[in-house]
Amino acid sequence: MSAPVLGIVGGGQLARMTIHAASRLGVRTRLLAGPDDHAAVTLADHAVRGEPADHLERFAADCDVVTFDHEHVCPDQVEALEAAGAVLRPGATTLRFADKAHQRQSLRTLVPVPDHLVLDGDELVRRRLHAGDSVVVKAARGGYDGKGVWVAEGPGPLAALHPSLGRQRFVVEEHLDIDLELSVLVARRPDGQRVVYPLVQTRQVDGTCREVVAPAEVSPSVAVDAIDIAITVADAVDAVGILAVELFVVGDRVLLNEIAPRPHNSGHHTIEGSITSQFENHVRAVLDWPLGDPGPRAPAVAMVNVLGPADGSDPRRRLQEALAVDGAHVHLYGKDARPRRKLGHVTALGDSRAEVLDRARRAAAVLGGTAAPQPEGACP
Amino acid sequence: MSAPVLGIVGGGQLARMTIHAASRLGVRTRLLAGPDDHAAVTLADHAVRGEPADHLERFAADCDVVTFDHEHVCPDQVEALEAAGAVLRPGATTLRFADKAHQRQSLRTLVPVPDHLVLDGDELVRRRLHAGDSVVVKAARGGYDGKGVWVAEGPGPLAALHPSLGRQRFVVEEHLDIDLELSVLVARRPDGQRVVYPLVQTRQVDGTCREVVAPAEVSPSVAVDAIDIAITVADAVDAVGILAVELFVVGDRVLLNEIAPRPHNSGHHTIEGSITSQFENHVRAVLDWPLGDPGPRAPAVAMVNVLGPADGSDPRRRLQEALAVDGAHVHLYGKDARPRRKLGHVTALGDSRAEVLDRARRAAAVLGGTAAPQPEGACP
Repeated sequence: MSAPVLGIVGGGQLARMTIHAASRLGVRTRLLAGPDDHAAVTLADHAVRGEPADHLERFAADCDVVTFDHEHVCPDQVEALEAAGAVLRPGATTLRFADKAHQRQSLRTLVPVPDHLVLDGDELVRRRLHAGDSVVVKAARGGYDGKGVWVAEGPGPLAALHPSLGRQRFVVEEHLDIDLELSVLVARRPDGQRVVYPLVQTRQVDGTCREVVAPAEVSPSVAVDAIDIAITVADAVDAVGILAVELFVVGDRVLLNEIAPRPHNSGHHTIEGSITSQFENHVRAVLDWPLGDPGPRAPAVAMVNVLGPADGSDPRRRLQEALAVDGAHVHLYGKDARPRRKLGHVTALGDSRAEVLDRARRAAAVLGGTAAPQPEGACP
Repeated sequence: MSAPVLGIVGGGQLARMTIHAASRLGVRTRLLAGPDDHAAVTLADHAVRGEPADHLERFAADCDVVTFDHEHVCPDQVEALEAAGAVLRPGATTLRFADKAHQRQSLRTLVPVPDHLVLDGDELVRRRLHAGDSVVVKAARGGYDGKGVWVAEGPGPLAALHPSLGRQRFVVEEHLDIDLELSVLVARRPDGQRVVYPLVQTRQVDGTCREVVAPAEVSPSVAVDAIDIAITVADAVDAVGILAVELFVVGDRVLLNEIAPRPHNSGHHTIEGSITSQFENHVRAVLDWPLGDPGPRAPAVAMVNVLGPADGSDPRRRLQEALAVDGAHVHLYGKDARPRRKLGHVTALGDSRAEVLDRARRAAAVLGGTAAPQPEGACP
C-alpha cells in the first residue's frame, strides 16, 4: 500500500494522540467517532460519526486496517467482518477479553489473578456478604476509569451496589491490600513479534489513573514476574498493537489486575519519555511494520493527569501559567471541561523520580486549578 | 483567552508540524492554505484556501493570533492589518526582512555579511563580470530551496542567469569559499524574551538543506560569534516566534547568510532532539507564552531530508523498510511525490555524530529510493 489508510474507532484522546503519531509517519487516518467525541475529529484526514454497530462494516471497507481507541465494540461483529476479509487489529479474539469475566476465566490458569467469582446479576442479588468480608465487584463489560467498579465492605446485599443488574455478569473478587500498582505495555505485531516497555508504577484514585512514574521501584523478582505476566498475557490474548497489562503488587506477589487492548493512560509518558511512543508503536504494530525501540529517554519520567476542576473551569485558561513550570510537557485534549473528566496530562523527564513527579504535579495542579498560579519565572 | 485560535498562513510541512505541536497543547488552529498545499489542510481544526492578498484580512479576524509557514506575504498588507488591530506574529517589521536586499542593507552595519551589491534587473543586465570573478546572484524576494539563486562564474553577462529581470532587485555577492554552514534558531516573544537553540551544522546541496547535525564541530570562538550574530539579528528584526539564522563559516570568520522568520528545516531535528521542539516554541512565542527549554536530549542528533526520488515514486511505499533502521524517527509530510521535492525527513539521536548521521542517512536513503531495502532485522 502506498499511503495506508488507518481507521480508528472512537474519537477520544487516545485516537487524538494516535493520529499525531500516524500523521508524523504520513499515514492517513479515518475516524469513526461517537456522538460526544471531540478530541480527534478535526485531526483525522476524514471523520464520520456513528455507532460501530451500525457503521463499522462500511467504515472498515474504506480502510486498510481498522484499530480502536476503546474496547466497547461487539466482538461478534468484529469476527464477522474479519471472516469477510476486513482487517481489524486487535481482532475479535483479543477484543473478547474486554469482558472482565472472560478475562479472569481464560487467564487464571496462565498467570496469578486475585481470588474471584463470576456471577450474574441474579446470583449477586441472592448472595450476602459475611461480616468482615470486603470484595470488589466489577461489571464484566463497559467499565472504565472506575465506572462499573464498586467496593463492598460487608455485611449487606451486594445487589445494593448497583441498581440495574439483570442478566449482566459481574466479577466479585477479594479486596486486596495492595502495596502498589504497576503497568506494562507490550507492542505486538500480527506474527507475534513484540517489544515490551519498561515497567511503570501507577497511582489510581477512585479507579482513575492519576499518576505514572518510571522506573517502578520494585524488587528484581517483582519486575521479572510483572514482565513475565505481561508477555504471557499478550501472547495468550493474541494482542496486536499495544496491550496494557495492569498489575497489583501484594507483598512479593504480582497479580494480574486487568488488560486493555489499546494505547493506555499508563503509557502517555512514552510520548516524550521513550524512544518510540506507545502511539507510534501501536500504529506500527497494527500496520504490521517493524516496531520501534521502547527504551527510555531519561533516567526518570513522570506523568500526571489533568482532571476537570470541580468548578468546571477550563484548564486551557491556565495553560500559560503551567508552561512556566520548567520542563513540563503539557498535553491538552481539546475536550470540553467537566469536573473529574480527563482533559490532559503533563509529562516531565529528569534524573530522579522525586524531581520529575514534583514538576509534573506542579504543572498539572496549575492546570487543574488546585494550585495558585506562580508569577512567571518565580521559584515556587 | 480560553482556547486560543492560532491562524497559520500556508499549509506545507512547516504548518503541519506546527499544528502537531499546537494540537498537543490544546491550541485550536485555522489554516489559510495555498492551492497546492496538502500537508496540513486536514490536520487543522479549520482550513480555507486562498491567497493572502485576497483573504488575509478576513482570516485574521477569525484568529486570536496569525502566524506564517512561509514569508511570501506582503509586509504592507500585514502592516495595515496590524494598524487595524489584528495580531500577526511575526509582524510587518520582521516580514520585511524576507527581502534579501533589505536584509543585507539593514543588517550589514550590525553583523558581518559577505561583500555584496544590490542591483535592479536593468543594472544587472548592464554589468559584466570580469574574468575570474565568481558571484552569487539572489533574487531579493520569492526564493526558497535554491530557487531564485544563481552562481555565475565570470566572464559573461549576469543577465543571462535569469530570463525575466525587469525591475526586481537582486543581491550580487562574492562567491565565498565556505568551510561550513551553520544555523542558529532563536525563539523570541513579543517583549524580547528569547531562548537560543544549540548551534547546528547544515549541509546544503543545490541550495537545499539536506542534512543537519548537532553539535556543530566548530571552535569556541566561532560558536560564540555565531550565537552573537543570531541574537543580534533576532533583536534587530524584532523577531517573534522562531527566527532561523543561517551562517557561513570561512576560516575563523562567521558571516550572516540569510534569515527565515519561521520554523526552519534546520530545526526539524528538535522534534525528538530537543527538550522543546522549534514548533512548540514557535507556538508558545507567537501566543506570548513562556518558552520551553531548547536544550538537547542526546549528545548527538542528525536530520536528513527525504527528497522525492528521480523516478517519481512515493517514499511511503518504502516506509516499512525505513522503520527497520533502528532508532530512525521517520517523518513524512503527506505530499504528492515529485522528484527533488521535500517529502519528509529522518532524525536519529545517539552518542556520536557519525553514528546518528549514519542511521538517519540509511533510513532516508531507503525512503528516497537510493538504497536497496534491507531484509527486516538484517545488519546492513
